Formats: sequence, structure tokens, C-alpha cells
Amino acid sequence: MRDIYLLGATGSIGTQVCDIIRAHPEVFNLVTATAHTNIKQLREVINQFHPEYVSVGTHEAKRELQELFPNQEIGVGETGLIKAATYEGSDGLLVNAVVGSAGLMPTYQAVLKGRDIALANKETLVIGGDIIMPLVREKRISLLPIDSEHSALMMCLKNEPKESVTSLIITASGGSFRDKTRAELTGVTVQDALLHPNWSMGAKITIDSATMMNKGFEIIEAHHLFDVPYNRIQAVLHQESIVHGLVEFNDGSMLAHMGHPDMRVPINIALFYPKRIPYQAQQLDLTTLKKLQFDRVSTKRYPLFKLAIEAGKTGGITPTILNAANEVAVMLFLNGKITFLQIEEIVLECLNKFKQTKSLTIEYILETDEVVKDYVHKQYS
Amino acid sequence: MRDIYLLGATGSIGTQVCDIIRAHPEVFNLVTATAHTNIKQLREVINQFHPEYVSVGTHEAKRELQELFPNQEIGVGETGLIKAATYEGSDGLLVNAVVGSAGLMPTYQAVLKGRDIALANKETLVIGGDIIMPLVREKRISLLPIDSEHSALMMCLKNEPKESVTSLIITASGGSFRDKTRAELTGVTVQDALLHPNWSMGAKITIDSATMMNKGFEIIEAHHLFDVPYNRIQAVLHQESIVHGLVEFNDGSMLAHMGHPDMRVPINIALFYPKRIPYQAQQLDLTTLKKLQFDRVSTKRYPLFKLAIEAGKTGGITPTILNAANEVAVMLFLNGKITFLQIEEIVLECLNKFKQTKSLTIEYILETDEVVKDYVHKQYS
Repeated sequence: MRDIYLLGATGSIGTQVCDIIRAHPEVFNLVTATAHTNIKQLREVINQFHPEYVSVGTHEAKRELQELFPNQEIGVGETGLIKAATYEGSDGLLVNAVVGSAGLMPTYQAVLKGRDIALANKETLVIGGDIIMPLVREKRISLLPIDSEHSALMMCLKNEPKESVTSLIITASGGSFRDKTRAELTGVTVQDALLHPNWSMGAKITIDSATMMNKGFEIIEAHHLFDVPYNRIQAVLHQESIVHGLVEFNDGSMLAHMGHPDMRVPINIALFYPKRIPYQAQQLDLTTLKKLQFDRVSTKRYPLFKLAIEAGKTGGITPTILNAANEVAVMLFLNGKITFLQIEEIVLECLNKFKQTKSLTIEYILETDEVVKDYVHKQYS
Repeated sequence: MRDIYLLGATGSIGTQVCDIIRAHPEVFNLVTATAHTNIKQLREVINQFHPEYVSVGTHEAKRELQELFPNQEIGVGETGLIKAATYEGSDGLLVNAVVGSAGLMPTYQAVLKGRDIALANKETLVIGGDIIMPLVREKRISLLPIDSEHSALMMCLKNEPKESVTSLIITASGGSFRDKTRAELTGVTVQDALLHPNWSMGAKITIDSATMMNKGFEIIEAHHLFDVPYNRIQAVLHQESIVHGLVEFNDGSMLAHMGHPDMRVPINIALFYPKRIPYQAQQLDLTTLKKLQFDRVSTKRYPLFKLAIEAGKTGGITPTILNAANEVAVMLFLNGKITFLQIEEIVLECLNKFKQTKSLTIEYILETDEVVKDYVHKQYS
């Protein structure tokens, strides 16, 4: 039995993780679970899995839940998230599917505790990679990505010696505005932006996909996960989203990981690794598909993609500034406060305004995250 | 140091193997080498590597070579090939790059001796797979393919448990007549047939590529090499010849092995396995390539492809009959004795005419090979 500590149990990833735990009761045991404010769904999680500890995002949500489960131990906010991540018990596996920078501290604490991690929270590595990864290596724990691109790279890299790897390539769908020119992006609506051409996922990541900030984040994550320098990691446009990641080796060959887009595949990989667990995904028939197309990512068309990679290369506090500005800007766009193109203006403004003032620590990252977010809120709300 | 016993040293594969041995004198030592009648090139091999034993295809070639190297031990014909394959010394590696059924016996004898094999000779597995592979497993030796498709499959299967493999897929360029309809095949010339769209290789395999008999052979080889049933091995048309092989796993994902067509890649893999050796192949840039296309193989358009798979499924002596008829028919076509479409007629005729009469042995395979070849020669020369 493997104990699971699940942060973000009611989101898109969390729900699928719950499905897998339900399907394999002899393998997994859900010990803790958290949700932001989706009490209705967390209630079902509690009824089904009887976790020892749960936590929610707000005091109001806690009150509501406590009425339903008077004897359940319930936490709240950051403290609750950290407690759920580091809850006493076996080493087990922390599945971190929280969205946003709130995901960093729980991962950090769980790593310190020596707990294995399955990571869907991008911010952990985007803003904290320089601190998290050395600790992961020191503690000799495993940190596996729940993300089709990084999972694909991991499967291509499996058991290959590092020195034989020449480059990593991830693919990008191009997002909801991929067929629009840059000029046509003026005045696009939130509704348009949320229509991802290839799949449906959370609002934040769908917007990050449209700006391709998400792909920049993924390059930063790949850099940290696989310890490969930025000049050997690329993204290519691939509108079919069938090939998720490719690894080029120094013997002149390349491995690609493919499949119909389906998050269950990388979730299963992360939960069962190194075992492959049978899963009836939609079968991939290349002869029905007819073709796979690839193209360059234009950094003119997707300036946030370029900014993200530059921030990654600069390192230190810069990815935190980039991410914080973007996180609030995307929220403001989703709430109708700013236009789509203002997202990149705000990110650029913050990258110019804020600078690194001390050496990198988790506390400094979180402090900067707050300062930048406050600034954007005050300026644009 | 690894001792190399090289059959077919002056052919396309053999020449490239010699290049690699030359480039890695600290790794490989050429102990034996054979050629059919290319004395000029074998002479260079002798001058460069000083093999202990060489062998040639004809007595005339032997006489000519002996004059040049009076003190060199030189063999001839099948006996010479077998002696070169099983030459006393360390276990080392037999690299069998002979074309045709003549390659079977030397592999068989080397396997019996417990020598590892790098196999470019297709016939060894196409006609002898049922005998060779159980022996390979019994002797616990390694038999690695020198062939882009099987090498690709091997790299995708590397370190994966067999039970997680759902299917194997190899790609087919479609050969020199891929843009012609079946009706347009009437009256095509030898010259046309030898113009392979994607690369240049030996005449025999170029014709087998045009009829797609070669792809049928490769499915039979894949069946034997990886012990996967025929209903889980497919070929797909892929005109760019960038993806060489794919493996579908039961977790919903697929791995593909890609690269520009370059035999040096699979040769290096077979010689250095499990190590990857750095090799500056032409870099694969998917964004320059723009697209990869896939299509079904029409068994109406390529009846020999279908016949080959059926022969593989029937097993026993049937692949030997298929291969022997095809080997002579292709030679007759190359010599202008028959038309392109007669190749398939002859193969079909022989499959109908000859039947299995006893249980399978190496001797029975070679005897049948001769009987069928004699028949085709007598009927059509």
C-alpha cells in the first residue's frame, strides 16, 4: 500500500488521481486531501476515502465542511496545505496538483521530510527549481512530473545515461489563438481565449497556453527536472498534440513519446512508476491521423514564451517576478479587468521594475511573489 | 577489445562496419573478413586490418587474392563463410552482412558456438527464425539487428517489460514505385526500379523494397527478434522515412525512434550496445521537415507484402519457399529475364507448388532453398 497526500483533490488533475486511487484500492491509500472551496466535491472525497486530514482554502469553507463532518480534522489556508503535504505517516507520495505559487511551500516541506513527489504544480519548479532540485537530489527522493510533456521526456530518457542526451524537445499546441496573427489579438475575449483547440483544462493554464507562457514555464521545468541547460531545450509547434516530447541522443537518433492527449497517461506514469499500468487510452492510429505537423515557435508572435525562457536563464528571483506578474494578470484578464495583450505588458513591466536584492531562499521567493502580486493588483484592479 | 568476424565486408553494410572498426581501433579487432568477388576492396581490408582469415565466393577470386597475399589464409564458398563466422578465438561478435540465404548457415554455426551476433542478413531470421531464436535464448547470447526498423524497435523496447508491449509498428517508404498505380507497374524497367526515393542501397533490397516483399520480411524478422505474435506487428507507409519504428504500450502511450535515414546509426547501436556511441548524424529538425505523413499499406497494391506475412504466419518451410522464389525472381528481373510483375507471379507459383514434407531443420531449409531456386532458374532463365 502506498499512502497518498493529495493537494488540489477537486481540480482536473486531482479528480483523475482520485479515480485512479478508487480503481486501485489495493495499491493506494488516500491519507490527506485538500481543496480550495469546492466543498461539494471534497465532501464526496471524504465520504469515499475517509482521509485522516483534509484542508480547504478559506475559513468559510472550513466552517461549511465542519458542519457536514463534525469529527473530521480540517485545516485551512497555507498551514493546512503544508500539514496535508507533510502529514505524519509513511513516506508515501505527495501528489501536488495545486495551481499557483501556493504549491511551492508544501512541496518544499515534503521534500525536507524525504517524501516522494508527483508534481502537477508548475510553480514549484518554475519559481523554486533552484532550491527544490538540489534538495531532491540530496534527499534521494523521486520527483516525477504530472504533465504530458515532461512525462514524455521522462519516458524517452528512461535508463539512458545523461551524457548521451543532446537535446530535449517539447511540443506546443499553439493555444486557442494559434490561427490568429498578432494584430488580430487586439480585443479578443475571455470566452475566445478559453476555447483551447485540442482539449479542455483549467482557465489559468488555458490562458497561459494562448500566450504560450505555459510553454516557457515548461522549458524552465524541463531544465530543472532533467538538469539540461536551456540552450539544449526547445519547443516546437505541433498542432495535432500527438507527440508530447522528444529526446535527441548523441548517436544520431531521437526518441519521441506519443499518444492522444489524455492526462490519465502521465498521471498513471507518475503514480505507478517505474511500472507501466494497463490503461485503455484511445488507440493511436497514425494511418487515420495521416500526418503530424511541426513548426517553429515565433517569439515575435509569442513574446511571453521568450520572456519566460530569458527569465529561466537569468534565474534567481526573475522567474518568481515573471510568474507572479503573470498569475495576477491572467486572473485580471479572466475577470475582465484588462485585455489579452495587457498580460504581456504587465509581465514586462514587472520584470523591469523588480530586481533581485538578496540571495535566493524559499522565503525570499514567497515574499517577492507577494510583493509583485500586490503591485499588479493595486495598479490594474 | 572485441573480436569481430565480418561476413560481407565489401558490401554497403560491411564497408560501414569497417569504417567503424577503423575509427575505434582500441575497441574492435577484425579477426576474419569475407567478400563475394570484390577482390579490390577486400585487398584494402586485408592491408588495413590484417585479418587472420579471409574468405571469398569463388575459386577464381581465391586464386587472384592468393597471388596478392601469398601468406594469407584464404577460404572459399560456404565452407569459407562458416569458418570465418566460427573462427577460433574469443567469443567476440559475428557481424553477418551477407545477402541471401547463404547467410543462414554461418549464423547458425556461430550461435551454436555461443558467439554474439549483429545481424544484417535478413534471411537468417526470415527462413531460419524458428530454429535460430530458440538456440539464441538457450545459449544466452545476444542477437542484435542491423536494420533501421528493428534497431528502432529495439531502442523503443529497451528496458521495457514484455507484458507492457501492445504492438510493434515499422514504417515503409513505399519503394521506388510508390507513386505508381498497380496498372502502371506493367513494363517498368530495372533502371526505374533501382531508383529508391529515399536512399541508395544494394540492388536486391531495392527491388524487394519496390515490391514491399522487404517489409513483409521485416515483419517476419520482428516476430522472431521480439517474440511478438503477427497480429500485433504492423507496417505503415511513411514516405519521409524519418520514423523507423514505433512501439505501443498498454498504458496508452507510444514510443517512436526517429532520425534521418542513415545505416550508421543502427550499425553503431548493434556494435556498441548497450552503450550509445557519439555519432554526428545529420541533425533532425522537425520544424524544417514540417510534416511526417503516414498511410495504410494496401495489400492489393503490394501483394508480396501480404504473401510474406501469410508465409510467416504459416511458418515451417513456407518462408523458405517464399524467399527462395523471390531471391531468384529478383535476380532474373535484374538480369532482364522477366518483368517486374512476374516476380510476384513466380513467388505465388512456388508457394502453390512446393509444400512442407518433413519437420523443420537447418538442413531441410537449405535443401528446400536449393530445390526452389533450381526450379525457378530452370523455368525462367
